[in-house]
Amino acid sequence: MTTAPEPHDAVEVITAKRDGGALSTDQIGWVVDAYTRGAVAEEQMSALAMAILLNGMDRREIGDWTAAMIVSGERMDFSSLSRPTADKHSTGGVGDKITLPLAPLVAACGVAVPQLSGRGLAHTGGTLDKMEAIAGWRASMTNEALLHQLEEIGAVVCAAGEGLAPADRKLYALRDVTGTVEAIPLIASSIMSKKIAEGTGALVLDVKVGSGAFMKSVERARELARVMVDLGTDAGVRTVALLTDMSTPLGYTAGHANEVAESLEVLAGGGPADVVELTLALAREMLAAAGVEGVDPADRLADGSAMDVWRRMVAAQGGDPSAPLPTARETHVVTAPADGVLTRLDALSVGVAAWRLGAGRERKEDPVQAAAGVTWHARPGDPVRAGQPLLTLETDTPERFERALAALDGGYDVASAGTTYQPVPLVLDRIS
Amino acid sequence: MTTAPEPHDAVEVITAKRDGGALSTDQIGWVVDAYTRGAVAEEQMSALAMAILLNGMDRREIGDWTAAMIVSGERMDFSSLSRPTADKHSTGGVGDKITLPLAPLVAACGVAVPQLSGRGLAHTGGTLDKMEAIAGWRASMTNEALLHQLEEIGAVVCAAGEGLAPADRKLYALRDVTGTVEAIPLIASSIMSKKIAEGTGALVLDVKVGSGAFMKSVERARELARVMVDLGTDAGVRTVALLTDMSTPLGYTAGHANEVAESLEVLAGGGPADVVELTLALAREMLAAAGVEGVDPADRLADGSAMDVWRRMVAAQGGDPSAPLPTARETHVVTAPADGVLTRLDALSVGVAAWRLGAGRERKEDPVQAAAGVTWHARPGDPVRAGQPLLTLETDTPERFERALAALDGGYDVASAGTTYQPVPLVLDRIS
Repeated sequence: MTTAPEPHDAVEVITAKRDGGALSTDQIGWVVDAYTRGAVAEEQMSALAMAILLNGMDRREIGDWTAAMIVSGERMDFSSLSRPTADKHSTGGVGDKITLPLAPLVAACGVAVPQLSGRGLAHTGGTLDKMEAIAGWRASMTNEALLHQLEEIGAVVCAAGEGLAPADRKLYALRDVTGTVEAIPLIASSIMSKKIAEGTGALVLDVKVGSGAFMKSVERARELARVMVDLGTDAGVRTVALLTDMSTPLGYTAGHANEVAESLEVLAGGGPADVVELTLALAREMLAAAGVEGVDPADRLADGSAMDVWRRMVAAQGGDPSAPLPTARETHVVTAPADGVLTRLDALSVGVAAWRLGAGRERKEDPVQAAAGVTWHARPGDPVRAGQPLLTLETDTPERFERALAALDGGYDVASAGTTYQPVPLVLDRIS
Repeated sequence: MTTAPEPHDAVEVITAKRDGGALSTDQIGWVVDAYTRGAVAEEQMSALAMAILLNGMDRREIGDWTAAMIVSGERMDFSSLSRPTADKHSTGGVGDKITLPLAPLVAACGVAVPQLSGRGLAHTGGTLDKMEAIAGWRASMTNEALLHQLEEIGAVVCAAGEGLAPADRKLYALRDVTGTVEAIPLIASSIMSKKIAEGTGALVLDVKVGSGAFMKSVERARELARVMVDLGTDAGVRTVALLTDMSTPLGYTAGHANEVAESLEVLAGGGPADVVELTLALAREMLAAAGVEGVDPADRLADGSAMDVWRRMVAAQGGDPSAPLPTARETHVVTAPADGVLTRLDALSVGVAAWRLGAGRERKEDPVQAAAGVTWHARPGDPVRAGQPLLTLETDTPERFERALAALDGGYDVASAGTTYQPVPLVLDRIS
């Protein structure tokens, strides 16, 4: 048996990008495939990833890279469904439970929502971890069960199958340990390869900006959004992005069980104003992108039909929607230092505190504590009184309080009463 | 047993350099040591190498990196010798046999020359490969034998021991497959870590510039020379660099046996003018750096004392200085296409042709052919007649002629008779 010679050489591809050139379609197709099958070594791909991070890629290159990642695995097909599909992706934040009310809400408006989700990463929460706080709920399902549930109920939140863009899984693990996570072409192609392979007809991106997000500046977030919208559009997916604030965490809780509880408040017609605002903004974009007109999602929260879809969706995946949610064994309350106005609550500080309390992982194989997290009792702009509870830390392992409190040190400001607080808009920009 | 936690994290060091920062002494010491003992993975070091290549390092960082490479292995000590030491390093070229006449010549002038040498890399020749064309000669020796030979004879050409800067050996192999060979901080620290660890008191660097060198432009070569001279000086080694032309190959031969023969001509008081010029220029720099005054190395060529050291040096390492040198089984002559003047003979073309004829290696474990190579019968500026031999290709494996001839295609120019040829100076600059 003879092996066919490789049409390219890893060093040739690396040096082309290192020297600031654009990689050809052929070079990109080869290097992604060769990496996936092991003919390009990890140390070669990490050098290439660093060169991409520092020298960039143009729109054609990013499209080729994304296409090569899609080709590495299977594609799904939702064309047999009786209704249009729309998906949402958030780039990750603190207290970001939006998927939980959003998926059933949009389904209640007549659109199928195939929400293939992930787990928490660093200080940011993951939708699957949150859903697993519900007794009995299972994240994994077959493609057949996914299609059936989309047709019958209209919404699915589940883990992406192993077959979807396997190149991305391998590359992501590599980027994580080589300081190359932050490359916009690689972030964009990682997200979009899975969404395009999934086969959704429409996609709304929630690109987070601020301390608690991976993109710290509006400029970087806008660049990422632009690249992803172009990728989706070029691949025939109706794609729109909202840039939304993540300098302050969403709602009043970060964790898993506590975020499920807050999501249920929204589905019941109440809930924190910012969570409701963002859920409705994203729902309206998803409906528009899916071509559904004349339905106001606010009505579907008010009339209970979104809650109804939620209960059916949870039950279909083995969950008991009526089971009590777990609560933490230990709590620690942080009180306000003085009378005044809360002028800042830093998303990163809260996210790191929740992570350290057990809501996040040290290593990717670690379990999470379903009841660990942080609840805050005021949001920026709210008046506070000296000694009132400001934050409650929740964990099953109280030895974690000390490091969580350290993360919160300097993470909020209380200004003297009467200080004018200038609110930050939640939706900062829209890219289409 | 518990393992002490690592004081740094590879991703922390990679991202600091990726984002354009300077690495601390502590970070550099840790990452080089951790890489050498396997606690930093190959894919992490290659990402860091690419970040260093694209974002650079300042003088302090390069010094720290070099020091960390030295610490990874043993150091030699020549302080017991009765005479001063001086070493020479060439960054690699075509037809560069200078070490062969230079080491015995400088020894004949009273300076000990510990010439720890390497093998050929890509199209460039390696001193050890050339010396091995001499029947019986052995490249490896113990440190004790090295010291003894330096004291008794004054010159040694041998392989660097395994214990010298082992971090460099591991890193070099990684850079070779990840497109990160060309980083000036890494080239400079690779060369200088071995020379400083070797313990020479003085060092003359021959930094090659032109098509046949790794540095194609005078600017890049000057930058590399400056970095290396600073590194040597900062480490207490009297260091000077000459920038020398490598757009044209040196002398009239590239290969192994044929370069030994040409070196013997120089040691006998003859030889090509350019080889003699460069040998004397480097010898004078080595004598000056070693603090030896009042000796003209040209006299030592003329009076046969350099040849005498050569014969003793070869014999001490098992070689027979009187044995006939091997000759190639097959030759192919390229003739001049017209009457005129040879205005260009491209070093890279000649080097690649010699490589393909068997003088170089495809993979680093391959053997070389001692008698393979190229001999040219005119140098730029020489008049030629139509049909006269211009180049002779030499190999034991004639199936190699075709690819060697392809490498020479376009590798030389013959202009009409009377064309003025503007010679390029051999020594382009001096950095101290």
